[in-house]
Amino acid sequence: MTSRYVFRFQDGRADRREILGGKGANLAEMSRLGLPVPPGFTISTAACRDYYREGRQFPAGLQEEVDQALEELEGTLGRKLGAARDPLLVSVRSGAAASMPGMMDTILNLGLNPRAGEGLAQVAGDRAFALDCQRRFVQMFSDVVLSIPHKLFEEILAARRELEGVKHDRELDEEALQAVVEGFLSLVREKTGRPFPEDPREQLRLAVRAVFESWNNQRAIIYRELHGIPHDLGTAVNVQAMVFGNRGSDSGTGVLFTRNPSTGETGLYGEYLLNAQGEDVVAGIRTPRPITELAGEWPEVYAELERYAGLLEAHYRDLQDIEFTVEQGKLYILQTRAGKRTAAASIRVAVDLVGEGRISREEALQRVDPESIDRLLHPAIDPRARLEVLATGLPASPGAATGRVTLDSDAAQALAEAGEKVLLVRPETTPDDIHGIVAAQGVLTSRGGMTCHAAIVARGMGKPCVVGCEAIHFHPDGGGFRIGGEPVREGDLLSIDGSTGRVMRGEVPLVQPDLSPAFRTLLEWADAVRELGVRANADTPADAARAREFGAQGIGLCRTEHMFMAQDRLPVVQAMILAETAEERGKALDRLLPMQRGDFEGILEAMQGLPVTIRLLDPPLHEFLPDPDELETPDDKRRARALQEANPMLGHRGVRLGISHPEIYAMQARAIFEATVTLVERGIDARPEVMIPLVGLEGELASTREQVEKVAAEVMAARGVTFEYLVGTMIEVPRACLVADAIAARADFFSFGTNDLTQTTFGFSRDDAEAKFLHCYLNAGILKDNPFMVLDADGVGSLVRMAVEGGRRGRPGLKIGVCGEHGGDPASIAFFHQAGLDYVSCSPFRVPIARLAAAQATLQGREAWRAGV
Amino acid sequence: MTSRYVFRFQDGRADRREILGGKGANLAEMSRLGLPVPPGFTISTAACRDYYREGRQFPAGLQEEVDQALEELEGTLGRKLGAARDPLLVSVRSGAAASMPGMMDTILNLGLNPRAGEGLAQVAGDRAFALDCQRRFVQMFSDVVLSIPHKLFEEILAARRELEGVKHDRELDEEALQAVVEGFLSLVREKTGRPFPEDPREQLRLAVRAVFESWNNQRAIIYRELHGIPHDLGTAVNVQAMVFGNRGSDSGTGVLFTRNPSTGETGLYGEYLLNAQGEDVVAGIRTPRPITELAGEWPEVYAELERYAGLLEAHYRDLQDIEFTVEQGKLYILQTRAGKRTAAASIRVAVDLVGEGRISREEALQRVDPESIDRLLHPAIDPRARLEVLATGLPASPGAATGRVTLDSDAAQALAEAGEKVLLVRPETTPDDIHGIVAAQGVLTSRGGMTCHAAIVARGMGKPCVVGCEAIHFHPDGGGFRIGGEPVREGDLLSIDGSTGRVMRGEVPLVQPDLSPAFRTLLEWADAVRELGVRANADTPADAARAREFGAQGIGLCRTEHMFMAQDRLPVVQAMILAETAEERGKALDRLLPMQRGDFEGILEAMQGLPVTIRLLDPPLHEFLPDPDELETPDDKRRARALQEANPMLGHRGVRLGISHPEIYAMQARAIFEATVTLVERGIDARPEVMIPLVGLEGELASTREQVEKVAAEVMAARGVTFEYLVGTMIEVPRACLVADAIAARADFFSFGTNDLTQTTFGFSRDDAEAKFLHCYLNAGILKDNPFMVLDADGVGSLVRMAVEGGRRGRPGLKIGVCGEHGGDPASIAFFHQAGLDYVSCSPFRVPIARLAAAQATLQGREAWRAGV
Repeated sequence: MTSRYVFRFQDGRADRREILGGKGANLAEMSRLGLPVPPGFTISTAACRDYYREGRQFPAGLQEEVDQALEELEGTLGRKLGAARDPLLVSVRSGAAASMPGMMDTILNLGLNPRAGEGLAQVAGDRAFALDCQRRFVQMFSDVVLSIPHKLFEEILAARRELEGVKHDRELDEEALQAVVEGFLSLVREKTGRPFPEDPREQLRLAVRAVFESWNNQRAIIYRELHGIPHDLGTAVNVQAMVFGNRGSDSGTGVLFTRNPSTGETGLYGEYLLNAQGEDVVAGIRTPRPITELAGEWPEVYAELERYAGLLEAHYRDLQDIEFTVEQGKLYILQTRAGKRTAAASIRVAVDLVGEGRISREEALQRVDPESIDRLLHPAIDPRARLEVLATGLPASPGAATGRVTLDSDAAQALAEAGEKVLLVRPETTPDDIHGIVAAQGVLTSRGGMTCHAAIVARGMGKPCVVGCEAIHFHPDGGGFRIGGEPVREGDLLSIDGSTGRVMRGEVPLVQPDLSPAFRTLLEWADAVRELGVRANADTPADAARAREFGAQGIGLCRTEHMFMAQDRLPVVQAMILAETAEERGKALDRLLPMQRGDFEGILEAMQGLPVTIRLLDPPLHEFLPDPDELETPDDKRRARALQEANPMLGHRGVRLGISHPEIYAMQARAIFEATVTLVERGIDARPEVMIPLVGLEGELASTREQVEKVAAEVMAARGVTFEYLVGTMIEVPRACLVADAIAARADFFSFGTNDLTQTTFGFSRDDAEAKFLHCYLNAGILKDNPFMVLDADGVGSLVRMAVEGGRRGRPGLKIGVCGEHGGDPASIAFFHQAGLDYVSCSPFRVPIARLAAAQATLQGREAWRAGV
Repeated sequence: MTSRYVFRFQDGRADRREILGGKGANLAEMSRLGLPVPPGFTISTAACRDYYREGRQFPAGLQEEVDQALEELEGTLGRKLGAARDPLLVSVRSGAAASMPGMMDTILNLGLNPRAGEGLAQVAGDRAFALDCQRRFVQMFSDVVLSIPHKLFEEILAARRELEGVKHDRELDEEALQAVVEGFLSLVREKTGRPFPEDPREQLRLAVRAVFESWNNQRAIIYRELHGIPHDLGTAVNVQAMVFGNRGSDSGTGVLFTRNPSTGETGLYGEYLLNAQGEDVVAGIRTPRPITELAGEWPEVYAELERYAGLLEAHYRDLQDIEFTVEQGKLYILQTRAGKRTAAASIRVAVDLVGEGRISREEALQRVDPESIDRLLHPAIDPRARLEVLATGLPASPGAATGRVTLDSDAAQALAEAGEKVLLVRPETTPDDIHGIVAAQGVLTSRGGMTCHAAIVARGMGKPCVVGCEAIHFHPDGGGFRIGGEPVREGDLLSIDGSTGRVMRGEVPLVQPDLSPAFRTLLEWADAVRELGVRANADTPADAARAREFGAQGIGLCRTEHMFMAQDRLPVVQAMILAETAEERGKALDRLLPMQRGDFEGILEAMQGLPVTIRLLDPPLHEFLPDPDELETPDDKRRARALQEANPMLGHRGVRLGISHPEIYAMQARAIFEATVTLVERGIDARPEVMIPLVGLEGELASTREQVEKVAAEVMAARGVTFEYLVGTMIEVPRACLVADAIAARADFFSFGTNDLTQTTFGFSRDDAEAKFLHCYLNAGILKDNPFMVLDADGVGSLVRMAVEGGRRGRPGLKIGVCGEHGGDPASIAFFHQAGLDYVSCSPFRVPIARLAAAQATLQGREAWRAGV
């Protein structure tokens, strides 16, 4: 008879997932490889579909095929379902083509009834074990098939434990278990009005039907909705012989990894227990032993395991996580899957597999999650540590830090100079806190979003930072705060994890970053593949040097405003802003000029031979001022108030400052070009790229560009030195994308500012949205991702595409990059690659991530091309 | 000889503007029509171009052609240039193809020298007149041709006036004038080292060259830059015989309009003086007489004038403004042009010309500037009034108002109830001032931009309003303010003109609006032509009724938040916002429900049979709260502070409120539908359209739409009545335009909110931009228009086009309108017509403007289509 619905494991094929489901295909694959998989068969997804099509009836022929497959199974094993001696037990498991973990039903130990239980007790030499199997089966079957609530069975068990005066089910003796099983069977009779089905074939029929039904239970439907899985695929059902590792001292069970999942080192890694079931390993009642000891204790089995591990790794070409059981000397492989591993191991394994000739470099590059690299670059909390988490804020800058709580930046500086490690904790930070942030191990604030001052400055410095931790309430009289109700005083030890936003009491054990040779190898391969350039956002020579070390090919964003905020400059900047006359303003600018020139000299020298994109002043001037009430003279107060704005994000900033206060941009251009000349005179290859922010109109760029070119010509004339430079613009308001062709005619390059572009495209103020309503959108599924973290391809992305197309129409070959935070996000990098950008720029610590993600984007692009997409 | 460069007036043609320049073509046209134009000739623009091409030399043949044309002119008139008896004098005037008023040079009375002056004195019988002509000629010629500064001549004149003890030049006698002329000639000799050129032919040659040169003077170049006129066109030069109206009692001069330019009434309108020159009419030394008196005094001349007026009106098919001179009984027409007229006259003339069969209805529609209609709908300042303008602010809501200065809304209400007319003057207004605004004739604020609270509320009410008048400085101790340095006390009379932003002391005479039959006729014609629908933005039944009267075809925007701001509701709204629990919030909403229901009943009834688009709550909740410090309990202060935002424009507002606080939208939907049912039960045709603001994501609309539909179904079920309604969305963030197809799948209609769309597309906060930097952009020419007044077609417009295309792709036939302020701007209306919108919606007072502008847009579209554009 040709089977239409039922496939023996040994007949299946891994490439028939749609028919066999994922689990069935995998069992078939291992059988095909000749691995000792407990035998069984798969009822196909087609049967499930036909079941629904027939009005929830077994389709014609299904029962016969199942019966026949079962008979064959019984014949193969020499055991019979429900037999009084050495009975066959089976598991009945769901398994759809797409993974839906835990959404559908499973029944173990099917086939048990009083007679078969007796047979199991005899063969196992353990009546308590057999009774335990039986009560588990009745409970699971009744729940899944008969819809009798699980907790009613738990109540019977609990009552019995109390009666016997024991704490765990495992401590119940034979008699007690016998009473429990009888109690369960009475409960079933009471609830259903008929006895528990004792006929194993009826049990099987009902179980298969229940698995079909579970395809349409509520949680499975919701899961499919959420993951976009069609509702008409149906599930397969796997019926497999049960094996037992607790059938004496020649039995056992264990788990092994084909390589060390923490480090990636080669060699089997795992643990085992003799005369035990898988449960026992998990429950921790007995201590399992390292798998390597099995080599001495039971060399034949170990050798067989080593052989299978090699076979599976060679077949799946990846580190495998394998479950096995030995029943009376016979080894069975129950499951294999790609093993979960640490970031470090994922890199080591991928690189080693290439060395072993198992996978290509391209495959290795696609095996590592770029996001996981982040953990390798920052100190991280030891994953084994027990933590006292007090509260969770926004993860504003990754890495973990511990220090003594300090509430004031001056104190933080003083303590740090005295050799103390400090953690700066503030309601929020302002430009006045820069020295405190520099001095601290990390920063924690109770207010602010992912783009608040503390977040931006800390990210720029690569310093751990948690912001917006609303559980913190400062004491009105100073000296400390309560966090989640717990008191914290100044000087207490506190830790933060800027990767997750967690705040912990005390010192937590940290793991320091270590860049392995495998890490460097993988990134070199990535560089050879990727088409996108990777630059870094850096504002200081130190950041620039670190970026270069991480492989940055230039600076994509050097923000001049952070230079303005340095403690020694802020008073001069403020004097410039509050100047009454053009003359006073000129004097302040004259004082700023040499400072800025020094900044630029440092960065251009650190990046010699590579381009450095310097953005002229961007934030509104009032950001450099304290609260107007804190200013001294009434005139200053008045002028500061006049600068305040209703919506600073959309206000008097960026190129708008350059148009209204041309003297500021002129000073900055002069500082850049004088720095360049000084370096050129010293024989250093300085490559400045002047970037005008927030341009939306051709005239804005035309006018500022003219001014910058005039300054460049003046500096060249005055110093008698010529140099190369570019003038380009940020693209960060929708209008710029819409008229990109006209703007490109004035620009040597474009650089997308995707944070502002996302704000204006959505009409979302990032700070307000993240504080007020974005969580509602994510919870309701109105947004899939936070668009400030992952570029919104449909909306913002279509503006990006328009700008790329328009820009290159206006100026063929226009150089285009991105310097927003999205430049370090792998999904966004894939988009930028597709959109045809030349480079991404991100924080120095994300440069390695971007290098790998860019390589993956190229490889995905090639695959899509091959697939004819 | 074939003339290459010089054309007699009688040989020219009006359609040769490029060759003859505008003035030359016009003189030729009148000559061709047989009108008695003083004869002359035009040196073509080609001569000017060749002059520059030859290195600023007269091109070959030009001098000969000029000589010949002059000889012919002398022959025709029987007078000779420079003759000792009855000499010919000519004017030499520039005249380019494009109008460049006052940019280039003109010389009058050319041909005078001592000998010809004597001749002129004799023939005029007035030596002083002849000397005066001569000194004017010398002065003008020396300035233009010899570059001797004007003020040196003025100094000589002033010294002479002082010597003679007179105030005006006209009071100088013959002897004094003789001395002045001699002084002028000495000055010229001193400055140039040679005598003033006495040869009239040399004068003419030098004058023509000077006019050529003036094409490239600094102000002409700048003017051409600004107006996009090419620099290589060159100017023509018109040489024309001078005629004099002061050659005795059979001479005279005058100005006439072919119809009354104030009212448009038919019949000649103007004034004349016998024995006088044009100057005398302007100078006001003698009082001119109404033109109608000429009919009795000099019937032949009057009849001739009537005939020419008819001829010119018939020819130019429009009201003409004509200058004439009678020299010794002979009538000359010196100039004709389309007459400037009031808005009322422009309508009356256009409609009458149709009645007279002169122009078509389509032409009539294009003759009236829609913007001018605004003045007809509001009280306006009498244009003849003398005004004491104290300062100028932003013209926030059109119309003029006078009232007693009141600094407080409660006082304003009390005074108004006592029958006083008051003007509310505040630093800015808040929702607490609504009753004061209602009570006042108009509103004046020292702060705020075109979208501040006062501006929005006043425009909605059609109440005059001037905002952002920074010249106002309130006294710290209250009771008044200084404005432009002038003190104003409470109770003083002050007037504002909301159409221009002017603030005036005292009461100004107002002209009340009067909608003439011609006005109604013209708008009926407009309705027959236009394809765009016109709706109104209205928030109250009174506004709705007014809108209907002005011809609105529905309400395109009914803002529910203004209802929230009414004095009796605000406390309930605040209680709702500050509610601690869902229950408290529910109670407040229950109290708001009947109030909102009443609002909607009123508006839906006023607009019965027409659609009413009601926007659910849009502004952020904190806009309804006072300053947190003013709240009573610490909890309220805290909650109010938590609602504050960094960028409210981009914050928690619009549909974001609907998602996070679904109970508010549910209450509003219930109020709308219950009102609808009540009206339906009364047999009234209510047509509600529910509009969701600020949508940028498909899921936002899907989720709120579902909620609205649920409420509708509940109301229908509860009341047993069915009704029709639509659910649509505003399109006001760029993302909505980019994914319009997906959003349209959930929307019955789109309505563009172009104010917010402009803000987000440019990244401009309107308030901040208008206060801080937009003037720089307009001054520098980076922007041509304020994009908040005139839609930015390149940027915002391309998003509008995308949204229209995407929307109709997503839902064929989707109804699309605009309800931003641009909906009332003629240039923007033309754009919306082209973009394929179904309707515009604007303030009630702009509905007639929009009707006319929409008709013009249709006509322009047809013309462009005919022209194959």
